[in-house]
Amino acid sequence: MVDRQDLVDVALGRIPASTVILGGTILDVCTRRLIPEVDVAVFGDRIALVGDASDVIGRDTMIIDAKGLYLVPGFIDSHYHIESSRLSPRRHAQITLPRGTTAIIEDSHEICNALGLKGINYFLEETQDLPQKVYISLSSATPPTPFEETAGYIGRKEAERMLRRSRIIGVGEVMDYARLFNRGERTWQVIMTGLEAGKIVEGHGAPSSPELDAMLCSGVSSTHFSGNIHQALDLLQRGTFLELKASTCKGAISGLIEADIDWQMVGLCVDDRPAELLLKLGHMDHEVREAIRAGLDPLIAYQLATINNARHWRIDGEVGMIAPGRYADVLFISDLERVKITKVMANGKIVAERGKLTVEIPMKPTPKYVKESLHLPKKLEPKDFELRVPSDREYVKAIVLRPDYYSSDLDQITEELEVQDGIVQRDLERGINKVAVVDRFGRSIGISFWKVG
Amino acid sequence: MVDRQDLVDVALGRIPASTVILGGTILDVCTRRLIPEVDVAVFGDRIALVGDASDVIGRDTMIIDAKGLYLVPGFIDSHYHIESSRLSPRRHAQITLPRGTTAIIEDSHEICNALGLKGINYFLEETQDLPQKVYISLSSATPPTPFEETAGYIGRKEAERMLRRSRIIGVGEVMDYARLFNRGERTWQVIMTGLEAGKIVEGHGAPSSPELDAMLCSGVSSTHFSGNIHQALDLLQRGTFLELKASTCKGAISGLIEADIDWQMVGLCVDDRPAELLLKLGHMDHEVREAIRAGLDPLIAYQLATINNARHWRIDGEVGMIAPGRYADVLFISDLERVKITKVMANGKIVAERGKLTVEIPMKPTPKYVKESLHLPKKLEPKDFELRVPSDREYVKAIVLRPDYYSSDLDQITEELEVQDGIVQRDLERGINKVAVVDRFGRSIGISFWKVG
Repeated sequence: MVDRQDLVDVALGRIPASTVILGGTILDVCTRRLIPEVDVAVFGDRIALVGDASDVIGRDTMIIDAKGLYLVPGFIDSHYHIESSRLSPRRHAQITLPRGTTAIIEDSHEICNALGLKGINYFLEETQDLPQKVYISLSSATPPTPFEETAGYIGRKEAERMLRRSRIIGVGEVMDYARLFNRGERTWQVIMTGLEAGKIVEGHGAPSSPELDAMLCSGVSSTHFSGNIHQALDLLQRGTFLELKASTCKGAISGLIEADIDWQMVGLCVDDRPAELLLKLGHMDHEVREAIRAGLDPLIAYQLATINNARHWRIDGEVGMIAPGRYADVLFISDLERVKITKVMANGKIVAERGKLTVEIPMKPTPKYVKESLHLPKKLEPKDFELRVPSDREYVKAIVLRPDYYSSDLDQITEELEVQDGIVQRDLERGINKVAVVDRFGRSIGISFWKVG
Repeated sequence: MVDRQDLVDVALGRIPASTVILGGTILDVCTRRLIPEVDVAVFGDRIALVGDASDVIGRDTMIIDAKGLYLVPGFIDSHYHIESSRLSPRRHAQITLPRGTTAIIEDSHEICNALGLKGINYFLEETQDLPQKVYISLSSATPPTPFEETAGYIGRKEAERMLRRSRIIGVGEVMDYARLFNRGERTWQVIMTGLEAGKIVEGHGAPSSPELDAMLCSGVSSTHFSGNIHQALDLLQRGTFLELKASTCKGAISGLIEADIDWQMVGLCVDDRPAELLLKLGHMDHEVREAIRAGLDPLIAYQLATINNARHWRIDGEVGMIAPGRYADVLFISDLERVKITKVMANGKIVAERGKLTVEIPMKPTPKYVKESLHLPKKLEPKDFELRVPSDREYVKAIVLRPDYYSSDLDQITEELEVQDGIVQRDLERGINKVAVVDRFGRSIGISFWKVG
């Protein structure tokens, strides 16, 4: 980043600004007001002055006219797994920067269980020079339970080392309630290391009281949320910062509007989204739009995606507001209600216009330890898919899985399948096929029935 | 503090609570709502559960009936100098705990210039077992300017060492604008060390733009405030957390109400108050009362004194809300608008009732390095007060100081004084006397004229 002492000199008119945005209407997320005709002076990647910029314009200062446009801080995703997009962090940035997401809090649960701490190093290296800031919350569940072995182990020693880094701003979703509620040693080591480092520890899910109280007793202070209004109020009134997945909890949003709450403890997040939906729906812009569609005052919706997420994660000195000293992450918006983003500035540079990336974000070669981390126990052959039952059976009842669907009602998920020579058969007419679930660490293969369509 | 794993066991009903507060109406500062008939279960110094506590009451659980009373989180002073009370921290706690102040952010500017870093150690040791939590912001101005020498020197090395301690939660009021705006080495070392430690750096005063922008470019993120509405909005919209001294800025409060702002970036503080006014007016209770008198919604006024101050200082996992995992700091209030506090719970124990302390806070012997830190250059004699002028003069014009008053208008502060044998005379009839200003480090004595009354 730019030197703060130089930034002071810019504010005081001793060094000209690199860029000045002239005459926009700022959405001041601190007071929740629109302030017309304000200039924003930028030096390098930071904001130097907000107000009248006429004294900081030099011969080489680039001028951007923002008359008639709203200026909103860049969006921050408060809980996200880049992994769910199936994209590398750089490819992911190419798609989501034009949608206005200039900062992400990446929950490293998945990459840590796939690659161990090397996964975090990979993400940090991929993103260190990106205009999209990627902060990391350290996986609290590697391995997820004491009965599993994944690519890594994160206990006290590992957590102490990682949490010293400024871009690792907290501990990720604590999901292993069994260990949380029963003195699980590794889980508690990671939580306590996070708290001792003065960083945020995230929760998972929305249990009812008293399990909810127990979760919060541990020091957990936020959770990503797609539940109902009763759960939302139960969490909020016990001091939990609520990261709403707006598109999945419009009922809760209406309820919170009706309850006329103070919104400072509420933010927005995407959590998981595959690449095809990022392209179709968008990223944080979609969540803001959905919150507004659920009836939320647009000014509040923008606060949820900016200052509120930043303050919760204690990065409000860096991002989340258009204010001196912060990164120059500014969205130029023509229609606040529809979240029509005409330009995106990140780290002081225009990086996208009308949905298209306007800068190069060159791909880096993927390191071998990432690319070659999938180890099959063996090459799969048709024989591996044979599921044997006693050879006198003509039919069996089988539990059939459906992608993205689960029911505990056995009638709903049980199908009768034909047996030939003691081998259970797929049934393509009903869309039922055999699928292999492969342990990426080369230990085992499981065969199951999946019904698609 | 109590072990968080034990706290989880209490929430889950495996260990009985130490104390349960039954059936109060909680002021939920997270959502800004009143929630009737809620129990609060306490274990040791922390809150274990908020909701229905019937499953956590054991044979030895102490029950406190709160029916008909409001339960409000203990007050937090976001910017305060205990030194201004002229009391030791323990004596100060005896007076301010009954007023509802259960946590203080002590700006150590004065004690550091009087005693160096030893002053902070003294405060930490005096307060480490107090039910009133005293957090420290490290003096940024020791010495105040490069031209002064006081009892200590706080540069990068000292700041790094001190800011590692969990109770030192930030850097105190950065007041030396000359150094701030002109690359003063020591000042910038302390600021950058604070930011690198992920802690808050406080500002001072309310300069206008662009000096305001320059101050914020440094990473400063809050200031204690007694200015007008224009200054308040200028500061807020640039991302400054505003610590209102409510009793001195009612105009600004009315203005902010009229501007219909979001209040999340506003808190309350006392800053300075001598012991006699603490006894007469109160402490944070007075500020809350004054904010309400200025027209502020009482629920918002309580937020300013609790959650808002806690979130700014990043201690909201410890204090500022009645929520699981936090210190059990609870005010029992019979009249919200008048801030009538009937009981104060701090660290899980009732410490005051109806304005009277109900626990022992024994005084500790003051260490020698504190008590014997005032060094006179010599014993003062009448001769030291002689101010000589040429012996043929009969009168001189002298600048006469008045306590707590300053004017730059020379006519206002100049008085004619009689000369006898070349020595300027005091004039008791006009209330003008000679006063010695003594350097506490034993280097110099200055004599000046003071007018009292």
